[in-house]
Amino acid sequence: MTIIEDRQKELTAYIDSVIEKYTPKAGYPDIIYEAVRYSLFGGGKRIRPMLAVMTCDMLGGDRNFIEPLFSAIEMIHTYSLIHDDLPAMDNDDYRRGRYTSHKQFGEAIAILAGDALLNLAYETMLGASQGRDTRYLSACSLIAESAGIKGMVGGQSADIGNDETCRDEKVLEFIYANKTTALIRAAVLTGAGSADITEDEFLALDEFSRHLGLIFQLTDDVQDMNGDEPEEGKATYGAVIGRQGCIDWVAELKDRAIKLLDRFGGRADELKRYTEAIASRVH
Amino acid sequence: MTIIEDRQKELTAYIDSVIEKYTPKAGYPDIIYEAVRYSLFGGGKRIRPMLAVMTCDMLGGDRNFIEPLFSAIEMIHTYSLIHDDLPAMDNDDYRRGRYTSHKQFGEAIAILAGDALLNLAYETMLGASQGRDTRYLSACSLIAESAGIKGMVGGQSADIGNDETCRDEKVLEFIYANKTTALIRAAVLTGAGSADITEDEFLALDEFSRHLGLIFQLTDDVQDMNGDEPEEGKATYGAVIGRQGCIDWVAELKDRAIKLLDRFGGRADELKRYTEAIASRVH
Repeated sequence: MTIIEDRQKELTAYIDSVIEKYTPKAGYPDIIYEAVRYSLFGGGKRIRPMLAVMTCDMLGGDRNFIEPLFSAIEMIHTYSLIHDDLPAMDNDDYRRGRYTSHKQFGEAIAILAGDALLNLAYETMLGASQGRDTRYLSACSLIAESAGIKGMVGGQSADIGNDETCRDEKVLEFIYANKTTALIRAAVLTGAGSADITEDEFLALDEFSRHLGLIFQLTDDVQDMNGDEPEEGKATYGAVIGRQGCIDWVAELKDRAIKLLDRFGGRADELKRYTEAIASRVH
Repeated sequence: MTIIEDRQKELTAYIDSVIEKYTPKAGYPDIIYEAVRYSLFGGGKRIRPMLAVMTCDMLGGDRNFIEPLFSAIEMIHTYSLIHDDLPAMDNDDYRRGRYTSHKQFGEAIAILAGDALLNLAYETMLGASQGRDTRYLSACSLIAESAGIKGMVGGQSADIGNDETCRDEKVLEFIYANKTTALIRAAVLTGAGSADITEDEFLALDEFSRHLGLIFQLTDDVQDMNGDEPEEGKATYGAVIGRQGCIDWVAELKDRAIKLLDRFGGRADELKRYTEAIASRVH
């Protein structure tokens, strides 16, 4: 086991324990608690919380600041997967090697479990808000905007309204910026909000997060491609620039993202390695 | 036109204008904005905002305090109707004399419109949170808890898990307390939070709101009954105590609710009349 793997395991255990702290264990009726926990503790890689923690640690920020926030972001991410998987949306039966929520619990409970998780995100953020400063409330607001109609939900709506025939640059840009990037950006900027940094540093992290979101979605797309054929029914850059085009773009974005972290010196090594790892999903 | 009707119209116009202020007008893609507005401005009676305003006015409270909060409550209420109407839930084609969201826009957009509205409720509350005191954040937290797994979503989950054969007093109590009452209570207590009141006054309003929530759901049930037959597939008190049992109980609850408002003197007249009007839906 390398030092990096040890650290990754330690961070995952820490993140899980924090999310656990904010998640109700049991209640009536059992099934809705079970469904919430089934998806929230269903083997997610905790990428968004990880980004918040690594950014916070890089900046010497306050972990206490980010804990309710990264938990909320992971709850929002999880709800979006449950609803995305529904028959009326992507109609997926499996996720992370297990049945999706609606296959396991039925559609009605899956819809409600998603609703419960989205709401729990805000119960978590608001429940921890007493005695915090305005910076905390700004971070909550940023997360809310990133998740909503002008963020993730807007991106999902554009996603279902277009397919692989889409060649409109503006539409693709919108989908990538909102469907995936918005919440990844919110995670990085949550970490940024936990420390005293300059406006330039904040702007560099903002740009870094946008590159990273794009890298994340592009590598996801490439994994879903069949040779040079893009995933059917989805508007993707893969349909326009092909597999190699995506891979080349990822490499370019990765270099730019990592360069943006240079200003943080050696403390940025971990976040740089994590960026490499996300980008390397297509190599 | 009576004075009461004038005042009701004036309040409805005021409430609509406030909700409008917090609701995005347009954006990309059009359809999700259209779907959000279709349901949010689709002829709802604004009962929850009305309760918040009347309670606030009765107490001489601060309307500025309640505006983002009652808007958020109405958004939460609206999202719950959209998701409740879905084929996997109640499968309703019509609401308020128009197509339900999924009949009008398709299931995928209806799911996302619900998600967008739930999220918009929190964007609204958080967006207005800067510079407010802890009482405001407590009200936000109360609304979040009332809407979530330990409130409305829990009640909906119990609702879909039971049918007209349910005779379990505890289950019925749970469903009525959470599915409908939680958000009505949150609306009244939002109004209560806008003024300086004693703990006794607060507790009286809390009890009032619980009676009112029960009145509201019982009168709803009676409207859905076919003679003495309760609505099929639903766990209701109507199935246990029959139509007349519900009507008698409403009358009793109404008297107790109104008595609880006596301590507020003449300023409670409006809220008393509104309670009468809600209770009279079964006469």
